[in-house]
Amino acid sequence: LTCARELFARNGIHKTSIRAVAAAAGVDPALVHYYFGTKQQLFIAAVQFPLDPMTVISPIRDTPIDELGGRLASVLLPLWACPAGAGFIAILRSLPVDSAFDLLRSFVRELVVAELAARVDDPIGTGILRAEFVASQLVGVAITRSVVGLEPLASLPVETVVATISPNLQHYITGELAPVGE
Amino acid sequence: LTCARELFARNGIHKTSIRAVAAAAGVDPALVHYYFGTKQQLFIAAVQFPLDPMTVISPIRDTPIDELGGRLASVLLPLWACPAGAGFIAILRSLPVDSAFDLLRSFVRELVVAELAARVDDPIGTGILRAEFVASQLVGVAITRSVVGLEPLASLPVETVVATISPNLQHYITGELAPVGE
Repeated sequence: LTCARELFARNGIHKTSIRAVAAAAGVDPALVHYYFGTKQQLFIAAVQFPLDPMTVISPIRDTPIDELGGRLASVLLPLWACPAGAGFIAILRSLPVDSAFDLLRSFVRELVVAELAARVDDPIGTGILRAEFVASQLVGVAITRSVVGLEPLASLPVETVVATISPNLQHYITGELAPVGE
Repeated sequence: LTCARELFARNGIHKTSIRAVAAAAGVDPALVHYYFGTKQQLFIAAVQFPLDPMTVISPIRDTPIDELGGRLASVLLPLWACPAGAGFIAILRSLPVDSAFDLLRSFVRELVVAELAARVDDPIGTGILRAEFVASQLVGVAITRSVVGLEPLASLPVETVVATISPNLQHYITGELAPVGE
């Protein structure tokens, strides 16, 4: 886990392989797979995010599409305030900016876009963009609240933030998107 | 300007004074005021943002409140793609994360919140939060597009992004906010 943390911090998730982590730790890659599973699971273990991604993903998968905006906000926003989220933010803050944003990109792609895009792909071809617009608002509110510390937004109860941004997330999920090239 | 850039980069706008910049450059603070105006104007000169803030602020001031969402997006988003915005992002990327977010906080407070909050303060007391929710979406889309480089969002034409986020910005400006404590 120490080797993984160092490599993830230096190179980001995308450029860090299980093989590289295993080599740094002097063990067989199969052993890393056996104990930690996928690279994403290893990352989550390494940054001390004491959450199985499925505890986040399952309630999202079980939510009807026309309620996803509210569900995403109410599942994801409290994470930043819990010890795990605070740890993740502390890691982001300790990195060079480029590495921090590489981590953030991996986090968004692998947890938000991968889960959401296929479900909200209506009309066909819009799913990834819908998911990325959702991510833009979630990232924006997480950064302005938890990293930048913009007051009074940063101290607003999370339920109030959830209630305020949910209709906007839902607009990206099921509302009309501007046609590309408009 | 070199001294200003160094101090802004090291300490952020908030903790950098005209007096400190003048001391570092070995000149009288009055001279810095005379040539550069306010600290914000000095910052904009130092980061090579070749824009008078008024070229951004004037069209926003002249826009009716029920059209502000679209106007804010169409004025602010193209900035990140122009050479000045790219320069600003290059500076953000070159800083330690904490300094980068200090700059970002100053930028949001002094250019978005300061201009917007008083105009959108209806019901009374909601203006700053409305402005900060607007900022959360603008910052989120700027970061996911221009810093994180999340594709395909990053390559989407700016007009399409403007058209997609404008209704959401307008919701924060004139829509119903969740009551605090809900």
